Amino acid sequence: MKDTIIKVRGYHLDIYKHVNNARYLEFLEEARWALFDDNGALELLAQKNWGFAVVNININFRRAATVGDILCVRTQLGDFNQKSGILTQTIRNLKTEKIITEAQVTYVILDLNTNRALPLNDEIRTILTRVIS
Amino acid sequence: MKDTIIKVRGYHLDIYKHVNNARYLEFLEEARWALFDDNGALELLAQKNWGFAVVNININFRRAATVGDILCVRTQLGDFNQKSGILTQTIRNLKTEKIITEAQVTYVILDLNTNRALPLNDEIRTILTRVIS
Amino acid sequence: MKDTIIKVRGYHLDIYKHVNNARYLEFLEEARWALFDDNGALELLAQKNWGFAVVNININFRRAATVGDILCVRTQLGDFNQKSGILTQTIRNLKTEKIITEAQVTYVILDLNTNRALPLNDEIRTILTRVIS
Amino acid sequence: MKDTIIKVRGYHLDIYKHVNNARYLEFLEEARWALFDDNGALELLAQKNWGFAVVNININFRRAATVGDILCVRTQLGDFNQKSGILTQTIRNLKTEKIITEAQVTYVILDLNTNRALPLNDEIRTILTRVIS
Repeated sequence: MKDTIIKVRGYHLDIYKHVNNARYLEFLEEARWALFDDNGALELLAQKNWGFAVVNININFRRAATVGDILCVRTQLGDFNQKSGILTQTIRNLKTEKIITEAQVTYVILDLNTNRALPLNDEIRTILTRVIS
Repeated sequence: MKDTIIKVRGYHLDIYKHVNNARYLEFLEEARWALFDDNGALELLAQKNWGFAVVNININFRRAATVGDILCVRTQLGDFNQKSGILTQTIRNLKTEKIITEAQVTYVILDLNTNRALPLNDEIRTILTRVIS
Repeated sequence: MKDTIIKVRGYHLDIYKHVNNARYLEFLEEARWALFDDNGALELLAQKNWGFAVVNININFRRAATVGDILCVRTQLGDFNQKSGILTQTIRNLKTEKIITEAQVTYVILDLNTNRALPLNDEIRTILTRVIS
Repeated sequence: MKDTIIKVRGYHLDIYKHVNNARYLEFLEEARWALFDDNGALELLAQKNWGFAVVNININFRRAATVGDILCVRTQLGDFNQKSGILTQTIRNLKTEKIITEAQVTYVILDLNTNRALPLNDEIRTILTRVIS
C-alpha cells in the first residue's frame, strides 16, 4: 500500500473550477509509479525483462475537488487472476475523508521479448506481494 | 455519431514509445467536446441551466499506438438509464482498422441550480438523440 | 508557413477560466509537429540521422483565450544563425484577429550519432527552406 | 526561495525518452504555485482583489532529463520593474547538480476589478519580498 499526497493547484482545474477528469488519471498514474518504482519493483521486473502494463481502468468520479484541496491517493494490491491482477486506487480529500475518485486498474506483466502477458505465477506474485504490499 | 481524427505526435508518447494511457483520456475528452459542443448540444443544455457530467469511465487498452499513426475516435450515443446515459467511444487505427482503445462513458445531466442529476426524461432524451446522433 | 486551427475546449482552461499557459506550449508543439512532420521534413532529417531540438522558447502571453474561441497557430521559418535557427509562432483569435500569444523558438539540428548541434550548412537550410516554408 | 523536488516518471518522457519540453513548463508552474500558494501569498493578494499573472517566459533547455532522475526546481524572486517583476527558476539534476532548464518568468500583479496591471508599489513589493523570499 502506498499513499501519495497531492495539493490541488489552479492549473489542475477546468472550466467548471473542478479538477479535470483526465487530471485524475495522471494523479493515479503518478501514484502507481510511486508504488512500483520507488521501492524497486520495476527494476526487479526489468531484470527478468518483464514489464508492467495497464489493460483496463474502471474509474468512478464521485465528488469534485477544487483548488487548495489536499488529496490522498491510496494504491493497494488487489486480487490476482491467472493472467492479470488488480490494483485498487482511491483519491480522498485528506480533510473531509470523503472519496473523490475510485478506480480499479487491471494490469498484466509482459514478457518484453515476446510482448505477451505472462501467467501470474508464484515468482511474480511473490515480487508483487513482498515488494509492494 | 461523430468521428474525430488525431495524428499521433512524438509528444503523445511515453517511455515505451507508445501513446501514454492518460493521453487517450484526453483524446476521448476532445471527441466528447466535439460531439456535444460543435453541434450546439451544450448550449441547448446551458439554456436550461443543465450541465453534462461524466460519472464513470471504463476503458480497455487493447493495442499500442505510436508516432505517425492516424487515429479515428468514434463517439456514439448508447442506452439511457433512468438517471444516467452511456456513450461508447472507440479509438481505431485508421489504416489497419484495429481497435486501439474502447471505452464506455457513463454520464448524467446535472441541474446546475441544485447540482443534482436529473431523471433522463423525454425532453433530455430528445435533445441528446436529435442533436447528437 | 503552416496554420493549425484549434478550438478551445473546457478542459483547456484553468481556475481563471482562461486557457492555461502550459496548454499554449502544447498548442505550439502540435503546430511545430504539423509543420515538420506532415510534409516529410522530419523524415528527410531522420534519413541523415539528424534530429530537431528546441533549445529556447521566449513566449509572450498577451491576451486571454476562453472556451469556444477558435485559435489559429501560425508557424514560420525565421532567421538562420551559424548553429541555430528561429521559428516564429503566433496564436491569434481567428475571429477578432487579435494576438493571444507569440513565441520565438530557437532550435538546433542534432547529429544523433554524437548528440551535438550541427552547423546550419546549405544542405540543412535547403531542406528547411524548401520543405517547410 | 523555494525548492520543489520532482522524480521523473516514464509518463513524463516523450519519443526521445527525455522529459518533454512542455512538461518542464508544468514543473515550473507547480513550483510557482508551491511558492505563492503554500505560504499564503496568493491569499494576501486575493484579499486585495489582486491576482498574479505571467506575461512572459524565456526558457532555455540545456540538458536532457530522463526516467528516475530527481529534479530540484528552484524558484527565486528577482528584480522589480515599475509594472512587472521577474522570477528566476532553475531545474537541476539533484545528483549531478547540472542545470537541466532555466527560465526567467515575468509577471504582473493584476487589479482583478479592472483586469489591469498595477504599479509594483511598496505594498506589493513588501508582500512579495516578505512572504516569498
